[in-house]
Amino acid sequence: MAQVRQAVEVTLDAFLQDKAHTACDPHLPPLIEVLRGFIAAGGKRLRPVLCCCGWYATSRSGESASVVRIAAALELFHTFALIHDDIMDASTTRRGQPTVHRALLTHYRGPRDPREAELFGVNSAMLLGDLALVWSDELVHTGDLTPAQYSAVLPLLAEMRTEVMTGQYLDLLATGRATEDVETALRIARYKTAKYTVERPLQIGAALAGASPRTLAACTAYAIPLGEAFQLRDDVLGVFGDTARSGKSALEDLAAGKHTVLVALALRNADAGQRTRLHAVIGNKALGEHGAAEARSLLIATGALATVEKMIIDRRRRALTALETAGLQPVGTQALRELANAATGRYS
Amino acid sequence: MAQVRQAVEVTLDAFLQDKAHTACDPHLPPLIEVLRGFIAAGGKRLRPVLCCCGWYATSRSGESASVVRIAAALELFHTFALIHDDIMDASTTRRGQPTVHRALLTHYRGPRDPREAELFGVNSAMLLGDLALVWSDELVHTGDLTPAQYSAVLPLLAEMRTEVMTGQYLDLLATGRATEDVETALRIARYKTAKYTVERPLQIGAALAGASPRTLAACTAYAIPLGEAFQLRDDVLGVFGDTARSGKSALEDLAAGKHTVLVALALRNADAGQRTRLHAVIGNKALGEHGAAEARSLLIATGALATVEKMIIDRRRRALTALETAGLQPVGTQALRELANAATGRYS
Repeated sequence: MAQVRQAVEVTLDAFLQDKAHTACDPHLPPLIEVLRGFIAAGGKRLRPVLCCCGWYATSRSGESASVVRIAAALELFHTFALIHDDIMDASTTRRGQPTVHRALLTHYRGPRDPREAELFGVNSAMLLGDLALVWSDELVHTGDLTPAQYSAVLPLLAEMRTEVMTGQYLDLLATGRATEDVETALRIARYKTAKYTVERPLQIGAALAGASPRTLAACTAYAIPLGEAFQLRDDVLGVFGDTARSGKSALEDLAAGKHTVLVALALRNADAGQRTRLHAVIGNKALGEHGAAEARSLLIATGALATVEKMIIDRRRRALTALETAGLQPVGTQALRELANAATGRYS
Repeated sequence: MAQVRQAVEVTLDAFLQDKAHTACDPHLPPLIEVLRGFIAAGGKRLRPVLCCCGWYATSRSGESASVVRIAAALELFHTFALIHDDIMDASTTRRGQPTVHRALLTHYRGPRDPREAELFGVNSAMLLGDLALVWSDELVHTGDLTPAQYSAVLPLLAEMRTEVMTGQYLDLLATGRATEDVETALRIARYKTAKYTVERPLQIGAALAGASPRTLAACTAYAIPLGEAFQLRDDVLGVFGDTARSGKSALEDLAAGKHTVLVALALRNADAGQRTRLHAVIGNKALGEHGAAEARSLLIATGALATVEKMIIDRRRRALTALETAGLQPVGTQALRELANAATGRYS
């Protein structure tokens, strides 16, 4: 997996360096530099890793340049998604650094007006995200796949893109009005994470290697429960995580009133007093450390945290069971087994 | 041309209706409805028309389904560009209707907080723009082109996307700090309009019909001067236009301090008193009708308006001259001749 990450990073960096080198305007390379810096700052490269797992779960032959290329395209697409997501959430920190729209405000050259500089940061980050999206597409189309590979992969890529945007939209609709509706929270997790982060990248790698419909279905059986577990772990880390390790704020999700399974369960289980206190802190824009601590203790006291931890274990077990009966190639199976444990037991 | 517009509109509408019909979540169709409404509200369909002109300038055979499909993809890409552009410019009106981010704030379901509803509108419009972008791609890849057509068209599409975003970024960098730098203003016009709106759509249509490098170069010789003339006309209409006819505000460009050739020329030609007054009104966020009227009279008094009108005529002539010696097919040549006059003499 470390090799996959490195190969993807090398491909992406070479692609972006070439973009800077052949840029039609001298103002573009500094913008591309921000993109390179953001990618280099970290990330788990989960989608590229899963894409390569899909390949190794299907193919008996060694590594292929085409799968690395497509894996790199998935990472660049994800870079777009993160840049736009951070704008929408008004997040200030990602990967332990300023988010892209915060980093770009230093490129503003207009009059000394902080509000104008901020707007410039957001607007140019929107554009840089758009560029990452269209360039991810270019990585696919210059990937020298066979016609059969394109026919297999392009519909899955199209589904993936629509699904993640659907998940983001459901998330927007639900944010700021936390309810006890656990089903909607799970639905968001399914689109935003289970399908986008796990199922589709895995299937795309498998499809590149010529997977049968049966293999693609086996990918789904493993990916959906694992992806849900991954999002549940993310929700827990978003509230209980250690900022130094995660590189993300542990206040923003609470202050924004993100509609997560964790919060929905707490509201469902809460007694009247707890419910009033939960509503006072969750979605409170001015939330400080004190309020966040109260929210955390309520998430524990209502049993929501314990239930989510049980849900994570249950889903990981289902993913692993599906894997054992999937009949995939041994190398891929072993990698997916390790991944299931890493993705649900992580701290960042 | 009316037939082209209609064929493109029918293709786009059928595609979006299918997207709504097969949506993975019931919250998606109302969002798609906003996209359909925005497209149906108008627009000149200049890029689809030019794409089809490129086809007819190259091919001797009749209309092809593939060119309509790609023309529709260009219009959907442009829809994405407009949605994001209106967010960046904080525009409230487009095509005589609320812009998409204004229309979407009525879909907000959270607590009654106007600021939150506005943010929701902007965020969901960002997502809807992203969806339009990835769907424009889907229109291309489900267009049943031949491998030779894909090889000819995809690199041009990739160039077009990067160029328009480069133009948008240069525009962002320059907005709010109007100077007498006419060259930068022309450079922005070249990327944002001459290449994106005219050259690339024309070349893409020509490439679909198997154009030679010589024909593609002839497209450029016509397109760049015409596209610049088109943007210069747009700049004039953005300040002197009739809102009732254009569907756009005639204040926003001035208030934002858009760095246009018109403004740069006025600053270059102005005497000391005029320059002070120009700087007081251009880029003044609180600009009212009175200030706008003063700006208009300064743009006239400095001779900037007259110079821009001369530049438009000069560029139209260059485009038409290039056309006469291009050796394109008669049907395409005739359409491009009419277009040159319509695009530079328009009122909206």
